[in-house]
Formats: sequence, C-alpha cells, structure tokens
Amino acid sequence: MTRTIIESATKTTIIGFDQPFTVIGERINPTGRKILNEELENDDFSRVERDALAQVAAGAGVLDINSGAVFSGKMAEDPRYADNNFVEPDLMRKLVETVQAVTDCPLCIDSSVPGALEAGLAAAKGRPLLNSVTGEEERLELVLPLVAKYNVPVVAISNDDTGISEDPEVRFAVAKKIVERAADFGIPAHDIVVDPLVMPVGAMGSAGLQVFALNRRLRDELGVNTTCGASNISFGLPNRHGINNAFLPMAMATGMTSAIMNPVALPVGPKKLAAKKAEVEAAGIVIPADMDDEAFCKVFGLGSTLPRAGKEMEAIRAANFLTDNDEGGAEWIKFNKSPEDAAAGGRGGRRRRRG
Amino acid sequence: MTRTIIESATKTTIIGFDQPFTVIGERINPTGRKILNEELENDDFSRVERDALAQVAAGAGVLDINSGAVFSGKMAEDPRYADNNFVEPDLMRKLVETVQAVTDCPLCIDSSVPGALEAGLAAAKGRPLLNSVTGEEERLELVLPLVAKYNVPVVAISNDDTGISEDPEVRFAVAKKIVERAADFGIPAHDIVVDPLVMPVGAMGSAGLQVFALNRRLRDELGVNTTCGASNISFGLPNRHGINNAFLPMAMATGMTSAIMNPVALPVGPKKLAAKKAEVEAAGIVIPADMDDEAFCKVFGLGSTLPRAGKEMEAIRAANFLTDNDEGGAEWIKFNKSPEDAAAGGRGGRRRRRG
Repeated sequence: MTRTIIESATKTTIIGFDQPFTVIGERINPTGRKILNEELENDDFSRVERDALAQVAAGAGVLDINSGAVFSGKMAEDPRYADNNFVEPDLMRKLVETVQAVTDCPLCIDSSVPGALEAGLAAAKGRPLLNSVTGEEERLELVLPLVAKYNVPVVAISNDDTGISEDPEVRFAVAKKIVERAADFGIPAHDIVVDPLVMPVGAMGSAGLQVFALNRRLRDELGVNTTCGASNISFGLPNRHGINNAFLPMAMATGMTSAIMNPVALPVGPKKLAAKKAEVEAAGIVIPADMDDEAFCKVFGLGSTLPRAGKEMEAIRAANFLTDNDEGGAEWIKFNKSPEDAAAGGRGGRRRRRG
Repeated sequence: MTRTIIESATKTTIIGFDQPFTVIGERINPTGRKILNEELENDDFSRVERDALAQVAAGAGVLDINSGAVFSGKMAEDPRYADNNFVEPDLMRKLVETVQAVTDCPLCIDSSVPGALEAGLAAAKGRPLLNSVTGEEERLELVLPLVAKYNVPVVAISNDDTGISEDPEVRFAVAKKIVERAADFGIPAHDIVVDPLVMPVGAMGSAGLQVFALNRRLRDELGVNTTCGASNISFGLPNRHGINNAFLPMAMATGMTSAIMNPVALPVGPKKLAAKKAEVEAAGIVIPADMDDEAFCKVFGLGSTLPRAGKEMEAIRAANFLTDNDEGGAEWIKFNKSPEDAAAGGRGGRRRRRG
C-alpha cells in the first residue's frame, strides 16, 4: 500500500489510497498576491500567520510555502534583489520559521529556486514535502540529490524539456521517467507524488477525462500518489466552485490522493456587502443601526466576513466517506453538526447517527 | 458505442457513454407520498401534471411513472381494490395519458405489477423505458417477453431469488445473467440499463467503492448502460445533498450513465419560512407588510418557494462538462448565466466564454 509520510516536529500527514484526501493549502504564495508580496518586502509576516491558521482550521493537512516574491522596492536600491537566487533562500527560511511558530501542520517547500528549496529543507522540522521536480534534465539533476540528501518526499510534475504535452500518454511517460530516475538516487516510488497536470476544461474538453485516466494508471502501473493544482480545471469559466466541487470527487473516485488548493472560502468583502445592503434597502427594509457586518451576513444568507471552510471541503469530506476513508461517517457527521447540536452537548450528532 | 434510445412521440433521449448523463425524474410515484396517493384515489391528476413539468424544467430527460398506489377508501367499498393487479393497470394508463398531455418528455413505465407494465407500454407513445426486470426467475419470465414484444429498453436490477447480495461480485453475476437471458429473447445489451444497487454508505462503508467498481465492469465487460436510485447512498445521514452531490460526479467519472432521482429542489415550505421570519424579527428587522414570500426568500437568501433545479443538477452539469459531454461548456455557461446577463440579451454569456 503506497503511503507518503509528511511530518512536522510533532504531527504526521499521510497521503495514501487508504487515507482521507490530503489538502495541501496553497495560500502562502506571493505570486499574484500583491498585498502579501508588499508585506513580505516589509518583513511583515502577520498575513502569513493568519493564512496558515485559517487553512489548517478549514482542513489543510499540509501547508505549501512558496517563496516566489518580487521585491521591486529593494531591487531599486540593491540590484542583487533582482535575482531570485538571492531573495528566495532567506525569505523561505523566514516563511518556514513563521509558519512553524504558529502551527504544527506539516509543510511543503515550494520554489523554482534550488537554493530556496535547500533553505526550506534546512529550516523545516520533521519531514516536509518538496515541491517540485519535473522531467526537465536540469531540474532532475538539481532536485533529486536534495530529495535523497534530506530523505523527503517530492512532488513530480509531468512536464519535461519539451514543455507540457497535451497528450496524456506523453505526460504518463514523463512521470514514469521521473520515478525511474528517482530510483537511481535510492528514492522509492512511495515518496513521489505525481502531478499529472490539469488543463482548463474550458480550453480542452477532454481535460477531465485525461486526469481521471492518468490517476488510475499512475496508481495501478507506477504505484504512486497523485496531486494537482485543482482549480486549474475551472480556469476562465463561470461558477468555478461548481466545476471544482464536481472535479475533486471525480478525481478522488479515480484514484487522486491529494490536491494543492485553497481550502478557505473567500470571506464576504466590502463590495458584496455594499451591494447586498443596497438590495435590502431597495426592498424597503431598514437595517438596524447596531447590526454589525457578520450579523448582517447571517440574517441575509450572505456567507461570512470571516474565513471558513470552502464548499470544496464539503465535497472532499463527502468523497472521503464515499471512498471508505471515513469510518462510520464520523468525520462527515462531525462536520455537518449544526451549531445548535454542538450547543446541546453533541446530542444532535448521536441522534442523527441513529437516523 | 452503447446507446439506449428512449422516445416519446416527438422527442428522443439517449443514454450513452458519449452522452450527457440522463436524469430519470422519480417524483411521479405515490409510494410514500400520502397526499399524491389520496389525490389519485380521487382522480385528481393536477399534482402529476405539475410534477411532470417541474422535473422537465429542472433537467429530467425521462420521467418515471410509478403506479404503486394503495386506495384504502375504495378498498373499503370494493374488495377488488385490495389487489394491485386490479388497481394499477388502469391507474398507469391514466398517469401515462396525463403526463403525455402536458410534456413530450420520454417516459419510464415503473411497476411491480406486470399488467400495469403492459398497460403503460400500450398507452405510451414512442419507445418508453420499462422499469424493471430483476434476476428473479418469475420476473425474468414475465417481463422479458414484454420487453421483446414492445421492443423497448429495460432497467435490470441486480438482485435475484436469493435477495440483494452485499457482495458486488454476486450483483455483477446477476446482471450478467439478465443480459444473457435477454439475449435469448433477442434483446440486445444496449437495451438493458443495469442498476448495480446502491447501498447506504452510512450502513456499509464500501457502498460507494462497490458502485464505482461495478460501473466500470458493467461498461467494460457487458457493454451496458447503468442507472441507480441515487439518493439511497445518503440514507440516514445528515446533509444528504452534500453526499449526493459528491456521489453523482463520482459515479459519472466511473461510468454511470443515468440515475433515477429527484431533479427538483424542495421549495421553501411554511415551517422554514416561519422560522426565518422569527429569526429576522428577533434581529430587530421589520418585514415590509407588502413583501410576499418569494421576495422574502430572495432578500434573506432562503432559496425559493417555487420549484427549481436542485443542487444535484449543478453537480451533474459540471460532471457532464468534465466527462467531455458538454461541448465548449455551452450548457454549463447557459446554466450559470445570471438573470442580469439574460436581461442584457445574452452578452454576458459571450463575454464569459472569452474570459
């Protein structure tokens, strides 16, 4: 039975066919997050702490730490900051130390810069996941020795020097090559988590079917665990959550064992709040002066201004149950216990279990 | 390519691996519906008409017509009504005629009484689906000749004279036996839609995995389409929709091509309305006197008092897209177009497609 062991100093997360799906929280990543990028440039790690805690609370089993920041301000003063080989190792160390100080959740060290990977591996306690190796020759030669040296598991992305193939046969062959090359370094298949690469279904109609078929082959023929950037599937489409919520259970039914994704629902922001308040007032309703935004959201069915688990987490928990990885549905029942049940000392949960 | 053709006088629904999932609407069934049962006893078919139209609007491709009513009042006056062989054939004819008068959606004739099956087949225009044959000897001998005589497709349920096996190997063997016996009557495999039987996952943890494995084998080894009573999977559990919404995409990813289910969301009823109004008033909000219930639901995020497509239909439409049965996502985009976009003459849909 394939099991990939990821550990912090005190906590273990196992990726495996006989395990609940592992959610690798993707939020600690300055790429495309302008505010976070600026805060990191100013040595402000408060958002990193909040994102770490919110993702763990929502159900992340591993936290991805990506150090790919661009420090334009510092760059203007010191040209060394234009080189990510200079910026990322130190930033990665700080990110890892920051996150480890607030949570015992195991980590995933994520960078395109080898020096940052090594800095992260050195700073991380326990046995982090490394993200990532590809089938590119240079990358194989740089990353596999690190994986062997630190005895950690690694994410293997199915592209090579020819790029990302649209042909799933080619992507399978790349994955197979990585597994074979890793074996030369003494790295076992159970320490390789293959990302078969998820294309947007809006651009390629067979994108879903490709992943489902690859999940099965990677599991049956190579005996490896799998992961993916789940939200890629819905890129460019309306109601992306609707697509993601179906994709994740489908991927799980066909053998996918983890995903790199955001487990936290976007909190209701000022724009959405203002629009709803306008709608409410147009309907002739007076909003009580002392009603705060969170109470407003609750009474008008608008979600929450606070971070909470996204709908994808409901889909994953249901699919855990349906793949026989939630004994007796204990986790499902706990997750769906209403606050009223909880207030009644858990009697609701027991009553329902008999239902 | 396996294709099961179901037809009304003017409309065709195809169940197939290369087709969008077929939803067989289950609502026209007096079993466990006390009010409907009473109305049918009083020759009131108005709810049947409404249920037919609501299910088609929500996305049903076939309407199941079950005549299993119990007429206790008439029974007291005339003992013949205690016999379903007496009650159901006439009721089935009336149900079929009622539904055919309001919609061109193809039908599924559903009864345990052979006379009702024949009455339904005689009354239905086109090529209805017959529901059902099992592996029980008596049932095989009664139903397969009807299937051959009327040249219609049939639902085959994987239980036999020994009952429902908890062993999926036995259920597969029963399905295989039915397909072989049907062949003796000249009935091709593509006219048999196998129900592998869905157990409640709350009672049997492997229930989901069993169905997923059977879907693949039924498709690969017998070349048949498949169906199931989808909501069985969540029997007895909290948040049943959460389980169903994951189960249906998972079943589709593993080869299931149809389900017998309710495509219509339960409208918000008086109890839920009253509870929300109490919550709203407790929050210090005055509900405008001229606000009707539907407007109230809209502003307080409570769903709708009118029938509309259930969340399961969103999951199925997403999974159609992800199994490459929604070219360019046209149906997904149409389904998710907001009313504002529609009011803008469809520009929203086009803009999003480019997004």
